[in-house]
Amino acid sequence: MSEFKLTTVEEFEAATERLLETGAKVGADSWQMRVKNQTPHCKFGESGACCKICSMGPCRITAKAPRGICGCDVHGIVGRNFLRFTAGGAATHSDHGREICHTLYETSADGNYKVKDPEKLIRIAKEWDIETEGKDIYDLAHEVAETGLMEYGKPFGHQRFLKRADKHTQEIWEREEIAPRAIDREVSCSLHMSHVGCSSKPEALVRQALRAGLSDGWGGSMMGTEFSDVLFGTPREMETEANLGVMVEENVNIVVHGHDPSLSEMICEYAEDPEMIAYAKEKGAQGITVSGVCCTSNEVAMRRGIPMAGNYLQQENVVLTGACEAIVVDVQCIFPALGPLSKCFHTKFITTSPIAQMPESEFIRFNSHTAGENAKAIVKAAIENFQNRKKELVHIPQMKQKASVGYSYEEIIRKLDGVTNSQVDDLGTTMPLVDCVKSGVLRGAVAMVGCNNPKVRPDAAHIELMKKLLKNDIILVLSGCSAQAAARAGLMDKEVIYTDIVGAGVRRVCELADIPPVLHMGSCVDISRMMILASNIAKHSGWTVSQIPLVGCAPEWMSEKAVSIGNYVVSTGIDTYLGVEPYAYGSSEVDGLLKGGIKDWVEACYTVEKDIDKLGDLMIERIEEKRVALGI
Amino acid sequence: MSEFKLTTVEEFEAATERLLETGAKVGADSWQMRVKNQTPHCKFGESGACCKICSMGPCRITAKAPRGICGCDVHGIVGRNFLRFTAGGAATHSDHGREICHTLYETSADGNYKVKDPEKLIRIAKEWDIETEGKDIYDLAHEVAETGLMEYGKPFGHQRFLKRADKHTQEIWEREEIAPRAIDREVSCSLHMSHVGCSSKPEALVRQALRAGLSDGWGGSMMGTEFSDVLFGTPREMETEANLGVMVEENVNIVVHGHDPSLSEMICEYAEDPEMIAYAKEKGAQGITVSGVCCTSNEVAMRRGIPMAGNYLQQENVVLTGACEAIVVDVQCIFPALGPLSKCFHTKFITTSPIAQMPESEFIRFNSHTAGENAKAIVKAAIENFQNRKKELVHIPQMKQKASVGYSYEEIIRKLDGVTNSQVDDLGTTMPLVDCVKSGVLRGAVAMVGCNNPKVRPDAAHIELMKKLLKNDIILVLSGCSAQAAARAGLMDKEVIYTDIVGAGVRRVCELADIPPVLHMGSCVDISRMMILASNIAKHSGWTVSQIPLVGCAPEWMSEKAVSIGNYVVSTGIDTYLGVEPYAYGSSEVDGLLKGGIKDWVEACYTVEKDIDKLGDLMIERIEEKRVALGI
Repeated sequence: MSEFKLTTVEEFEAATERLLETGAKVGADSWQMRVKNQTPHCKFGESGACCKICSMGPCRITAKAPRGICGCDVHGIVGRNFLRFTAGGAATHSDHGREICHTLYETSADGNYKVKDPEKLIRIAKEWDIETEGKDIYDLAHEVAETGLMEYGKPFGHQRFLKRADKHTQEIWEREEIAPRAIDREVSCSLHMSHVGCSSKPEALVRQALRAGLSDGWGGSMMGTEFSDVLFGTPREMETEANLGVMVEENVNIVVHGHDPSLSEMICEYAEDPEMIAYAKEKGAQGITVSGVCCTSNEVAMRRGIPMAGNYLQQENVVLTGACEAIVVDVQCIFPALGPLSKCFHTKFITTSPIAQMPESEFIRFNSHTAGENAKAIVKAAIENFQNRKKELVHIPQMKQKASVGYSYEEIIRKLDGVTNSQVDDLGTTMPLVDCVKSGVLRGAVAMVGCNNPKVRPDAAHIELMKKLLKNDIILVLSGCSAQAAARAGLMDKEVIYTDIVGAGVRRVCELADIPPVLHMGSCVDISRMMILASNIAKHSGWTVSQIPLVGCAPEWMSEKAVSIGNYVVSTGIDTYLGVEPYAYGSSEVDGLLKGGIKDWVEACYTVEKDIDKLGDLMIERIEEKRVALGI
Repeated sequence: MSEFKLTTVEEFEAATERLLETGAKVGADSWQMRVKNQTPHCKFGESGACCKICSMGPCRITAKAPRGICGCDVHGIVGRNFLRFTAGGAATHSDHGREICHTLYETSADGNYKVKDPEKLIRIAKEWDIETEGKDIYDLAHEVAETGLMEYGKPFGHQRFLKRADKHTQEIWEREEIAPRAIDREVSCSLHMSHVGCSSKPEALVRQALRAGLSDGWGGSMMGTEFSDVLFGTPREMETEANLGVMVEENVNIVVHGHDPSLSEMICEYAEDPEMIAYAKEKGAQGITVSGVCCTSNEVAMRRGIPMAGNYLQQENVVLTGACEAIVVDVQCIFPALGPLSKCFHTKFITTSPIAQMPESEFIRFNSHTAGENAKAIVKAAIENFQNRKKELVHIPQMKQKASVGYSYEEIIRKLDGVTNSQVDDLGTTMPLVDCVKSGVLRGAVAMVGCNNPKVRPDAAHIELMKKLLKNDIILVLSGCSAQAAARAGLMDKEVIYTDIVGAGVRRVCELADIPPVLHMGSCVDISRMMILASNIAKHSGWTVSQIPLVGCAPEWMSEKAVSIGNYVVSTGIDTYLGVEPYAYGSSEVDGLLKGGIKDWVEACYTVEKDIDKLGDLMIERIEEKRVALGI
């Protein structure tokens, strides 16, 4: 046994407690306090049974008032709310993807942004029937980017990437009329369908929610992932660290937070600039440390090994260390609380995107033309802020773990190739993984994703479920805040396989393939990588996606994006397990569809279970059921 | 004085009371009862201070809980809700416009849909720099349609129709960064900005709400209007009738309801078919009467003189007559209540659009390829249903008024040309109108639009305000349910000018131009016609739009579309007066922007006043202020 030791949730919590003491000293607000203020939640809203869609209301459904003023019943109201929740998520992820397309469109040989993975670019161009021969790589980049941008608004046809799915899944999408058209059209159509006096039939609303989700996962998100790889490199295995201890007291600490790597990549670039490092030293620091929060962190961890300070519910903690010179944000999942909180410290809260403008922040408008100078100005501002630290407030919990990250689909295949007997078997397939599952060395796999949510003990569900699944020889692919929880706990340290939390089968596989037992596949848009993985397993194994002993899980989800993701995951044939109820339980019909009825359409559905241990049991049960059905 | 007499709101109400008695007999629900059940409304929702945008909540802002769990304050929450409300409306109107573009794309010389106004098509093609010379009209239609469809999703540039606005307004849009890009992009961007962890700055959220609104009014709605004209003819003055008395007891009554004329036009076509009329007679009826509810009604009234049975809050009344064989709906503002209500009678409730699918309806999926057969099947089904009437339930209130309708921008110009001295003045301009305003014969104009809302005594606000304004020599242009209220009251009968409710100036002008004092400009998408009118007045007069003695008014608005409309109307420089509070009063900052602050951006803002008489006074005051400022 190695000396490796997991960090426990209790240790996370003790560190947070200590930071909250600092917060109390300076009169800072915290999400922990706000949760208390906001509890109990409105049951109408939580069950989805409240409608604010027109100004005749708001209407609330009760036994005595079974219909809204327009006559809509609870099923219509809940269905509309659910569809809109999805549309919010699909729009958000996809708009992120659009920004990446625009960045790709702005690449040039001597510009701020360049093509780092020309091979992937050429591969996508060929997939999209774009002529590549003899073309300048930047001309090609612009052509592919423009074609990608058209996926948002083309008047006819379906998403180009749908063809990546296995035939069976494509046929389901066609048959069920959920193959997504232009991405933005699905968003607008969702709002239209749920407008006053439009659809109130749960089947229609849920069906459109699936289609909107698919426009995200196999459209906007997939472009976000693919073109981020083209721009910044397709992730390869990489060593990094995680948890608040990655911040360095002696250094200028810049924390990047949000989702779009266009900003954070540039910040990292300039933070490594010798001129900037020298400037930091001049200002009394020993260097510059960039660390990250949320998915921007995942992006730069996956491609640059930038350490991960924390996930969603840790964002206030990085400021509470008193050692954060600047928290620089782009879009999504950024607490507006960071405005007032940063004012309690010396921290600069720098917003950069027109999409995410917040009070009490410094707004430095970032765009691809000025990216370099913007990033430089931000790094400089952080350096100059070092001297403003209130020393008595500085406390960085000395807690971090090593993590191996960077498992893009391509990297997973490379790892699998490493254990393939190339004289007998084909390279470049998922068959080694399939064979492990067939033989029972691995019982199956879980794709665990999503956020934190104070409705669940933060990170505990992620970590406890992972431990339970590993023990049962189920391997995990992760993304988003789930991945960061794992990394902070130490589950991404390859050494973890030598502890008794990991089953013998998983240990064997990880040892052979030289991987950790939980594989960081990236940010939340990168769940598209998991879709590719699942459908390629289907193609290689001859199983349908829904037959694979694989389920999805988002035990602590909180955002609209998560529901959009859930919808495309189930629509791809993967049963999905949630630890938090969507705002849909107010309607037996909508709830019934989501938790069962849609199985008739897409061969998968949702399970919601708040008892996390039970949630784990249910997943294991489902995986074993699938094995039995396959006769393996 | 003529024998003409207005129908009063009291008479409307008495008729409704009588119909509700029938409803009570058959155990029907009604909006009147549902309003009682849903009152009082949730104050959190009504003030915009409740947030359901992520699943950490819902959160409600109170003095003790001033921030949501993410830290968003009431201004951010209200701003996000307001932006989403607008986005819902912009998406809905624009998606209607998109359907029209698709219908135009499907036109052919021998198909279900043809080009009825080739001149307008050619005019738009030229405006959009599309070559017209020597091109088959259907080839041109398809090219223009495709170009129109690209306005929804083009990756670069702004809406093509913005160039129709006067220079000053265009400059404002540019300067304030509210010139809309692709329509669907503005919708998606609105959802993204209001996603958890994105914008919480009221200025940013309200600004995007204006931009999303503009993408509707000068984008989706304008295309909806223009291409409907191309397809079905640009409205010309036409005589029709309005109110429930247009239904004919001896005939098969088909009521069309919704917004998209593609369906209703086809229904009208087949209802006039001698074969169908013969079939109706065979089944014991004397003929077929098509009448309408809501904006679909406005569409076919404007182009075919099809009578208008009622507006939004009359939709249940048409079924309660017991004489409605079929209520055939397309999209928007359709009560789900029609499902159960129609089951209390013999009425067939036929839904036709995938966008508006409702329980307890018969779904006949309508599309441009099968439009003819679909419409024929619907007409036939209605005829065959005639014999199922329960005679004892039949009661049609014998109440209707004559109405002159069809005042498209082009028709208004034609009318103005009729009073132009062509030897001295240019034809084809709004100058005769401007001159009347300058001289003071007309004090100004009000564009009155929008829905009914039970929060206001139905139709009373529309009608009382119109009377007040006419008395004060203010002329009105109308659309939507407002126009139908006017028609039902008799205000669109040209005879009305000879009553004492109309001021001497308005009477003089109407007499000369041979128009009623309130001009029906069409459906709610046709508010785009009003934008053209206003900016052409600006161009012709040399005033800016905000200088014109003109205000907008939606005294009984209820839908998200109405807020989208309001936003593009104020963004075009026209002060807008509402009789119902938007769900935004919970934030002093958002409320302050809407009712004042945005004036600094777009030279106009909102006024909300629930006392309808006062609302009228405020509009008159504002018009007089503008006159003083102009020195006229």
